[in-house]
Amino acid sequence: MSKFWSPEVHQLTPYVPGEQPRQRLIKLNTNENPYPPAPGVADTLRDFDASALRLYPDPESRALRTAIAEHYAVTPEQVFVGNGSDEVLALAFMAFFRQPLPLYMPEISYSFYPVYCQLYGVERKALPLDHEWKVDLEAFPTNNGGVIFANPNAPTGHAHPREAIAGLLERQRDSVVLVDEAYVDFGAQSAVPLIERYPNLLVCGTFSKSRSLAGLRLGFAIGSKELIEGIGRVKNSFNSYPIDRLAEACAIASLADQAYFERSTAAVIATREWSREALTARGFDVLPSSSNFLFARPTRIDGPALFESLRERGLLVRHFSSPALAPFLRITIGTDEEMRTLVEAIDEIQA
Amino acid sequence: MSKFWSPEVHQLTPYVPGEQPRQRLIKLNTNENPYPPAPGVADTLRDFDASALRLYPDPESRALRTAIAEHYAVTPEQVFVGNGSDEVLALAFMAFFRQPLPLYMPEISYSFYPVYCQLYGVERKALPLDHEWKVDLEAFPTNNGGVIFANPNAPTGHAHPREAIAGLLERQRDSVVLVDEAYVDFGAQSAVPLIERYPNLLVCGTFSKSRSLAGLRLGFAIGSKELIEGIGRVKNSFNSYPIDRLAEACAIASLADQAYFERSTAAVIATREWSREALTARGFDVLPSSSNFLFARPTRIDGPALFESLRERGLLVRHFSSPALAPFLRITIGTDEEMRTLVEAIDEIQA
Repeated sequence: MSKFWSPEVHQLTPYVPGEQPRQRLIKLNTNENPYPPAPGVADTLRDFDASALRLYPDPESRALRTAIAEHYAVTPEQVFVGNGSDEVLALAFMAFFRQPLPLYMPEISYSFYPVYCQLYGVERKALPLDHEWKVDLEAFPTNNGGVIFANPNAPTGHAHPREAIAGLLERQRDSVVLVDEAYVDFGAQSAVPLIERYPNLLVCGTFSKSRSLAGLRLGFAIGSKELIEGIGRVKNSFNSYPIDRLAEACAIASLADQAYFERSTAAVIATREWSREALTARGFDVLPSSSNFLFARPTRIDGPALFESLRERGLLVRHFSSPALAPFLRITIGTDEEMRTLVEAIDEIQA
Repeated sequence: MSKFWSPEVHQLTPYVPGEQPRQRLIKLNTNENPYPPAPGVADTLRDFDASALRLYPDPESRALRTAIAEHYAVTPEQVFVGNGSDEVLALAFMAFFRQPLPLYMPEISYSFYPVYCQLYGVERKALPLDHEWKVDLEAFPTNNGGVIFANPNAPTGHAHPREAIAGLLERQRDSVVLVDEAYVDFGAQSAVPLIERYPNLLVCGTFSKSRSLAGLRLGFAIGSKELIEGIGRVKNSFNSYPIDRLAEACAIASLADQAYFERSTAAVIATREWSREALTARGFDVLPSSSNFLFARPTRIDGPALFESLRERGLLVRHFSSPALAPFLRITIGTDEEMRTLVEAIDEIQA
């Protein structure tokens, strides 16, 4: 606390990301991809002309927006890019959700959303998940200042099909619906094709998960031109050049290799299904997942106790302390070998 | 305009950065450094293990903050880093300047400051420069919600000595004084040594100018632990990981080469002084500059006319259209050859 801070800063409860351990652990706690980025990324770095770094990047990131637009069959004017999808979300909250009516979200979802509400003074209404741990799309009232949810949701991993989201959009025409698709490439349907029909739909994505570029900080949003113009106005009042030259070049190289993208996401999906069966066989309740993680409740041992025992064995998974989530562990899908090591450790602990 | 935007977004007038031309021009318009970054930056890129990009960066950027702290003889807890100094400024406005009293700034200074005021609803009081185009430090009233100015100032290039800033800080103890030192390494005195005496002093810096890394987006702030904690709370409510792994590694490589840093800034200073004399000899009023640009008023031709004539010859400088600044051009210091080309073009135009 300090008399020099703006009054609102005293009330802020910042987001706490998963631990970045400094010692060598098997790291299954922040939903990183176990495989490296596309080989073209390494080539881009090796061949990059460092002297070009003396110049500012393109403030509009046109080359990257064009590449993303081609990938999603939209136009560059329907694409926004930011310094990680957390920045994209932060700017979207500023651009769309500071409204007289409250913003609706699931009670259990990405825990950064309530932090943005605090930061911008947005009133938040949280709705419970349904009895199957799914986001209850029917429960969102139509009279609101916006709706945000993740699809697949975090940390549960459940995804609604595109048509269920279209159903929500049919009812809600007057405020922005933000669908956060950080994990969509691991087996869910993207809502991007709906942007033509619904000018109030904003879809967020990231290069951190399916493209193995968490260390590069690249996120994007796709929506109608009027939404992209709105978030662009906020971006240009915050930081003219959020995307650096290296990040833009590496992201374009990643998008260029569709075969690698499909192969590495398919590998993660296959390992996830193997892991789900292995955990189920060991007495875990495992929610079906369309993401690169599993949300799993051990039944032969306490969640927190298992978390600690795994950590002692050099295996780091994510545990959330809120009462509803505390019995569960969120386990990122690693390589086959890492997941075998995890399962063996569980066998030892439960023996 | 859109019904989906937050009400405040309709009023925003975003910052307009200097043009990034797509054709080949001699680019003296955005205060970029004409020399490449330290050779260690190219080595860092060539040797970088791209597979490490699959992992998130350190959210606290400890390695980079430690390297900056060593350079400035402060502690890492007194250092904040951000995605360009524009982001650092934006977060500092949120952290410190949303106060009941207005924020004071010079009427002529970095034109992003009023944009941040709009974005966060900060009341702004602008004070005129003195008769020599200097920031009038005596004119700031002590009863305020904060003070911000650039030192050296932009686009004038004038810098106050450290002791003049200490004088301001002696009078103003109760709100934050932000000194933006984007250009300080080209011959001005940094206020960083004052942070031990004044816990309300925040000094901002950037790797974009003297370190030739505008394309990498790296800025920092140095101040008391309580100010750094305040801006950190806002950062952690906005984006956990603003600094990507490549930017952190390249910035550390730049800091490691003090000899190159001194050589390249000295080269820019020498070219600046040659350019100042050359322009003065051609009838320009040139303000003394402690930065990597000159603010110069032609007297044999109109400012806007000269801007256009130079552009036709492939030379891009910066022109501001506000009435007080319109007679001037802001000319970034390029290489010796670029500045000779500029002077020859002026000779042709004025012939």
